[in-house]
Amino acid sequence: MLEKVNKPSDIKGFSQEELKELAKDMRTALMQKLSKRGGHFGPNFGMVEAIIAMHYVFDSPNDKFVFDVSHQAYCHKMLTGRKEAFLDEEHYYDVSGYTNPAESEHDFFNVGHTSTSVSLASGLAKARDLLQKKENIIAVIGDGSLSGGEALEGLDFAAELQSNLIIIVNDNEMSIAENHGGLYQNLKALRESNGTCSNNLFKAMGLDYIYQECGNDIAAMIETLQKVKDIDHPIVVHIHTKKGKGYKVAEENKEDWHYCAPFDKESGKQFSYNEEEDYEVLTNHYLLNKMKQDPAVVAVVAAVPTNIGFTEEKRKLAGKQFVDVGIAEEHAVAMVSGIAKNGGKPVFATYSSFIQRTYDQISQDLCINQNPATILVNGASVYGMNDVTHLGIFDIPLLSNIPNLVYLAPTSKKEYLSMLDWSIDQSTYPVAIRIPGNGVVDDHRDVDKDYSQLNRYKVEKVGNTIAVLGLGSFYQLAEEVCMMLKECFHIDATLINPRYISGLDTALLDELKANHKLVLTFEDGILDGGFGQKIASYYGMDDMKVQTYGLAKSFVDRYDVSSLLKENGMDLANIKEQIELWLTNN
Amino acid sequence: MLEKVNKPSDIKGFSQEELKELAKDMRTALMQKLSKRGGHFGPNFGMVEAIIAMHYVFDSPNDKFVFDVSHQAYCHKMLTGRKEAFLDEEHYYDVSGYTNPAESEHDFFNVGHTSTSVSLASGLAKARDLLQKKENIIAVIGDGSLSGGEALEGLDFAAELQSNLIIIVNDNEMSIAENHGGLYQNLKALRESNGTCSNNLFKAMGLDYIYQECGNDIAAMIETLQKVKDIDHPIVVHIHTKKGKGYKVAEENKEDWHYCAPFDKESGKQFSYNEEEDYEVLTNHYLLNKMKQDPAVVAVVAAVPTNIGFTEEKRKLAGKQFVDVGIAEEHAVAMVSGIAKNGGKPVFATYSSFIQRTYDQISQDLCINQNPATILVNGASVYGMNDVTHLGIFDIPLLSNIPNLVYLAPTSKKEYLSMLDWSIDQSTYPVAIRIPGNGVVDDHRDVDKDYSQLNRYKVEKVGNTIAVLGLGSFYQLAEEVCMMLKECFHIDATLINPRYISGLDTALLDELKANHKLVLTFEDGILDGGFGQKIASYYGMDDMKVQTYGLAKSFVDRYDVSSLLKENGMDLANIKEQIELWLTNN
Repeated sequence: MLEKVNKPSDIKGFSQEELKELAKDMRTALMQKLSKRGGHFGPNFGMVEAIIAMHYVFDSPNDKFVFDVSHQAYCHKMLTGRKEAFLDEEHYYDVSGYTNPAESEHDFFNVGHTSTSVSLASGLAKARDLLQKKENIIAVIGDGSLSGGEALEGLDFAAELQSNLIIIVNDNEMSIAENHGGLYQNLKALRESNGTCSNNLFKAMGLDYIYQECGNDIAAMIETLQKVKDIDHPIVVHIHTKKGKGYKVAEENKEDWHYCAPFDKESGKQFSYNEEEDYEVLTNHYLLNKMKQDPAVVAVVAAVPTNIGFTEEKRKLAGKQFVDVGIAEEHAVAMVSGIAKNGGKPVFATYSSFIQRTYDQISQDLCINQNPATILVNGASVYGMNDVTHLGIFDIPLLSNIPNLVYLAPTSKKEYLSMLDWSIDQSTYPVAIRIPGNGVVDDHRDVDKDYSQLNRYKVEKVGNTIAVLGLGSFYQLAEEVCMMLKECFHIDATLINPRYISGLDTALLDELKANHKLVLTFEDGILDGGFGQKIASYYGMDDMKVQTYGLAKSFVDRYDVSSLLKENGMDLANIKEQIELWLTNN
Repeated sequence: MLEKVNKPSDIKGFSQEELKELAKDMRTALMQKLSKRGGHFGPNFGMVEAIIAMHYVFDSPNDKFVFDVSHQAYCHKMLTGRKEAFLDEEHYYDVSGYTNPAESEHDFFNVGHTSTSVSLASGLAKARDLLQKKENIIAVIGDGSLSGGEALEGLDFAAELQSNLIIIVNDNEMSIAENHGGLYQNLKALRESNGTCSNNLFKAMGLDYIYQECGNDIAAMIETLQKVKDIDHPIVVHIHTKKGKGYKVAEENKEDWHYCAPFDKESGKQFSYNEEEDYEVLTNHYLLNKMKQDPAVVAVVAAVPTNIGFTEEKRKLAGKQFVDVGIAEEHAVAMVSGIAKNGGKPVFATYSSFIQRTYDQISQDLCINQNPATILVNGASVYGMNDVTHLGIFDIPLLSNIPNLVYLAPTSKKEYLSMLDWSIDQSTYPVAIRIPGNGVVDDHRDVDKDYSQLNRYKVEKVGNTIAVLGLGSFYQLAEEVCMMLKECFHIDATLINPRYISGLDTALLDELKANHKLVLTFEDGILDGGFGQKIASYYGMDDMKVQTYGLAKSFVDRYDVSSLLKENGMDLANIKEQIELWLTNN
């Protein structure tokens, strides 16, 4: 049946049996692609029937769907002219893993962060009303996204809209891991009472509400959606689906199958990307050990526990010294500030892309108050996630310009663990640590134990003429550059490990003037507002020349790392050329 | 009675009559100070009884109060050793307008942004539990703060805490203006049913709940708080108070009396700070006019309608073309992205300090999607609010380093209105405009109508040797510097109005090299991550010298503008000295 579908209207004439056939075909396609390429398994397998029903009842793109996170939109893509990307291996990479307006008029937003759909849909609805148009606006939200502040703000506001807005709450009983937060108790009570229990969260927010227990039944879903089509006010359609539906292994291990690596279909064994030592496991091992020694230590995550290795087993080991607040980064940061204020030693860890959700809390709740909490920033690198919505290259301008925050950039495993240990036990500064994104480097350089004298850069190799500053995960690139300078130009460059992203070692920078003429800076992120520009500005009135290396300010998407580095002049050949040019002019 | 209180325990022995006397004294002190100095009137007058009861029942600082926004904590200050700051005019400025740990052990956080108290208090409670201490943790939240995402995340999480946490919801039926959002309908229903109506929001979040209708009755409040003292799980204590209680004018005009200017006690007439033309009124006048011509134009605010002049009267004029989303900046930005996507022309306005709450939505919901919404950034200046929690000096690094966002810095009334008009009607870029913070300048310089060719700086006066770049509200300072250069050094400097904060005019910067040796940059905010550092970095490999002027990265508090500018080297005498030094060395 899927072969027959080129646009949503193609399914409007299908019988119930044909729609069921279609669902089967779509799951087969999902299974085939995901077993080969990996992807968001559970969210998509759970939403097959709901998405078929949505396209059967509504008229996309006139009626408009907004998918939260949009990791559950694979089937929507199949029905809107993009089925080849799931049926033909050669076209697998034609589509992104999220909705994407560049791909189709049926997609309205590039979405990858959670909790945004109700607000975005409210905007579509408001514009429709202003322009006196008629159309259904449908937001789809689920997978733990409801606990995010933006989603709750959106629900609260929606009640005031007084016009058509259909909010499908896809309740699969899960976030990435298990759900956290009181509202999920309410969803459970609603499921168990077929939507009739007292203290309905959505009604309490001022919204109309209906419940559909059979979210994986096409006929039931069609009937429910037909009831709400063209409704004249906002309504929540709470549907109960099964995450990973149709693949037993995934149904039974929902957390492991939220996102999957390529896997063997028969055994359900995922092929792990690599077996090397990684910072997730290292951090976890360190923290569990530290927790045993000190009951004040507590690890906090916002729905991504495995970003610091807290699998279900490790969470049990940590007990009350581990907190998953659910998708609620703002709350997490304010809470760790409170924990630190009252004598605890909190470590909050999340991805660089998600730390963006909590700028104000880092500034106001944490840094103005100067409470000694530790924040671990994961995936902060060109080597991190490469979808446009999940880039890890903006945290340096974001965090390093907040007063009072000490932002550290370790360059090796030893240095990372040493900084983490110092940070947890000190009681003076809010500290963020940028976990190296270039793999675990275990070299023989000595590292300091104490980082309380701020902004002292480490000279790893004394030289002259050129000083190379390699920040964090680009330290090893700086090492390579120094070797190239020696080999190609017989220059013994000075190699510096800045360690502190958030401040300048002005004494060292002044010293360099004596026998250096050029400073090269390397940082693993965008240049604008970052580290190198501070160095260049510091030397603004001096004769010292400064060349900064990093990425241009841009929303890059699904890039190849070495190509991107090359485009931004960070290949050795280009650096060599620039040095040659400089030498010629001097 | 107030004279007898030096610490909270002093009131423990007071009779009910004495406590009432105390309340009267406290209102008299508030009235006296606020009529002379201005301040948060409504929130404090409404909370007198509740705060007395809190200190009567609990043992601060062992029991810990966390006040949301903390603009309602004046009476808390009076009872915790700081009464002189309200009784003695000479000591009025001894205390800040918010809780402040530097002032007293009874204050746990510097707080000024809304919606943070439940999360901060959760942190205090979590640390208490980890360290096996016993104490009551009490969060106070109200004045519209509940609709903020961080507050809702906090409430949702609190249900999981399984230990003592008392959340006092101060329901005075108001935000700064009227409340917005469906949850306030629920509070209304709860008030009207004495806390018994169905679909209780707090219970739906998994929290225990009690209601007290008489929030301005000390005895009733004491009784209620005694019930929840030492409770072993989180509970919401919903209290009904009257904002501005005890001053008829304020009770009847709650919005005008949320914050008051100095006023005449008899007539209730507030002395307006100035009668000059301001950007709030100008923006409002422009927008109302534009709305009449174009039904797609819609103004959006997050609980601060008057920041663009939308008084109650003007809100009525705008009708459906005005939206106050309540305290919900994240939702506001995502919503305007949706509005723009569906053909509307949205303008969202808030203060620089509050735009911080929505970095991720600006990046993800708006800029990745490149939707043509307009954001007005108000109070973004050293001349803005000067409390440490409300500084307007961090938005340049925050916003100008987000890809795709065009951040404009007008230098005059004409230029501002022209940029605003262009931004609303164009359909290519997300645009933010930094409303000048240095008062309305109405000069005779021509301004462009079209800003679609990005990053073209305007040379306002052609000169040589030194180029002076005056960004936005520091353009006039740059003008003064040029005059000084002429007078003192006979240098005809080139004067440049950069206009675009978010990008470099590389062609112009290259041209300058021909007959300029020094570039001075002026920006009204912190230097780190900002505009000048980009200029300095651009010239990093050239002989051009660059001196950047702006503020050091620091959380300054209640500063005097001219002293702060002088400390940061931005007085003409220092600039002159630096030029002299440069001339000597060249």
